Amino acid sequence: MSVHDAVDMRAMLAELPVGDAAAAAAVTAREAELTKPRGALGRLEELTAWLARWQGRSTPRLERVRVAVFAANHGVAARGVSAYPASVTAQMVANFEAGGAAVCRLAEVAGAELHVHALELDAPTGDVTRADALDAAGFARAVAVGAAAVPAGLDLLAVGEMGIANTTVAAALAAALTGGSGRDWVGRGTGVDDEGLARKAAAVDAALARHADADDPLEALRRLGGRELVAMAAAIVAARHRRVPVLIDGFVASAAALALVRRRADALDHCRLAHLSAETGHRRLAEALGLKPLLALDMRLGEASGAALAIPLVRAALACHLGMATFGEAAVDDRSG
Amino acid sequence: MSVHDAVDMRAMLAELPVGDAAAAAAVTAREAELTKPRGALGRLEELTAWLARWQGRSTPRLERVRVAVFAANHGVAARGVSAYPASVTAQMVANFEAGGAAVCRLAEVAGAELHVHALELDAPTGDVTRADALDAAGFARAVAVGAAAVPAGLDLLAVGEMGIANTTVAAALAAALTGGSGRDWVGRGTGVDDEGLARKAAAVDAALARHADADDPLEALRRLGGRELVAMAAAIVAARHRRVPVLIDGFVASAAALALVRRRADALDHCRLAHLSAETGHRRLAEALGLKPLLALDMRLGEASGAALAIPLVRAALACHLGMATFGEAAVDDRSG
Repeated sequence: MSVHDAVDMRAMLAELPVGDAAAAAAVTAREAELTKPRGALGRLEELTAWLARWQGRSTPRLERVRVAVFAANHGVAARGVSAYPASVTAQMVANFEAGGAAVCRLAEVAGAELHVHALELDAPTGDVTRADALDAAGFARAVAVGAAAVPAGLDLLAVGEMGIANTTVAAALAAALTGGSGRDWVGRGTGVDDEGLARKAAAVDAALARHADADDPLEALRRLGGRELVAMAAAIVAARHRRVPVLIDGFVASAAALALVRRRADALDHCRLAHLSAETGHRRLAEALGLKPLLALDMRLGEASGAALAIPLVRAALACHLGMATFGEAAVDDRSG
Repeated sequence: MSVHDAVDMRAMLAELPVGDAAAAAAVTAREAELTKPRGALGRLEELTAWLARWQGRSTPRLERVRVAVFAANHGVAARGVSAYPASVTAQMVANFEAGGAAVCRLAEVAGAELHVHALELDAPTGDVTRADALDAAGFARAVAVGAAAVPAGLDLLAVGEMGIANTTVAAALAAALTGGSGRDWVGRGTGVDDEGLARKAAAVDAALARHADADDPLEALRRLGGRELVAMAAAIVAARHRRVPVLIDGFVASAAALALVRRRADALDHCRLAHLSAETGHRRLAEALGLKPLLALDMRLGEASGAALAIPLVRAALACHLGMATFGEAAVDDRSG
């Protein structure tokens, strides 16, 4: 199935390619020959096998690595759930484009191309406490943006977001998909104060009550998510079809991914969780995803910063795999005797 | 005091430079102006302030970064405590020099120069179960090698080791300095089997009994450590004198560092622990150092691999600090209102 032929999320999820077990096995076999005790590079070895499996290459490559940041606005921002006004979303998109944001520098250090996708910033989604975030057409447009963000030929994709108030909708989506109340799932996001945190929990509770009848994870994503969450989910699925492994960023990206894995248990097999955010609830969300974070550095920025920061780890893993000598080449004894 | 004038460890430890609080404060003040919520880059922000404090520069730099690997052999290797024969130490040193080892690739990815220091490989230290590892002259020679490995002008130093059987002596040193028995401190190292693990614990217990009267951490280091542990400790202290921040590698490097911090509580203030090794006991050892690891990727290779892998994180932190726009430059609203 071509990604361009079908940007319908349900259709894309219905036919997910499986990984290339032979490519992964070839990598694992080579790892055993390299001049180190077996398994001594820990999760780096697993990362290389993961690249092989999902790129479908027994010799993985990282020539073209992309960081994709999806930005959108949210009706619920009017409820005072963020430390920043909604106008900051567009300002930060301009900052991304001008090269002044953290992710610009992190992508540069990672040797990755940065693409920013601003989704109808002038049209915030519906206020989830009293309406659907998106109608079917708006959902489809966001899916199309996400799917189009993954061209053929990428070797790795890092996915993240920017959107004032989006930790609120992410908390609501996570609660809707896994249980719990607003208090269980909200955190301080960009730094909201105690009163704002209480408003945030109340907004999540109101959203949960309003959308209690959403009986499917993708319906929950449409009604409770936002344009950038939908686009991230679509990008993740499109990457699977294009054989591109994905690094998932923090709390908001994880909530979007959760809708996928709740719809289909193997939907995130081509993904790794880049980092554990300091945002309340991300640990629980990571467990719900079944993914163990690669980094845990108390970051809580979003904008794909954690995913971009994990790229050098993947590069390091591949560099070891491709560039180390074997026991035979180096004339190093493999085990005693 | 010049490092070259005094390679006596006690003398070097007696007069430790303090950090540059003004430089660190300048970095922290700039961080607050950058286009992100305050503190949102988590430990990356702390890393930049750490560079500033210990380089003594309000604008830190990472132009010259070195990975130093110290290699040595150990008399206790004859007790069957390792999965590999002692001959592998020299073979791996050749592999480091030929560019075939993991740390070669990791240093390259990190943009760091790799220096390997082989310490009298043909003269293993005394078997710690029945003798001192080093006499005073051997200790002094290893200190000199470590101190000389830190030239003026380095901006960051990553410190690690290679030495068959050195997790055994590291476990013995850790136990001597913090309490506990062989079983509490030994792990599988490069992959020793159950019988080897039992021999390892017994060797540690024998060493603890033999050296129970070592009444000073540096005496414990001389009697229980090895040439590479002594050299790492000396390099760490020399780096302090030369205003070079240090990334400490895994279990063995941490044991060497522990001797310093037990001698003087502020001895490791210029250091960060790069990673948490999969080796049993490293978590407890990290707590004894008072250092929180930057990475935890189930690695257990040594050879400064974890320290080298952390360098890109430090580079990323500095790149954000130096290259991000301020709120004013980017015309992004700082907080609501």
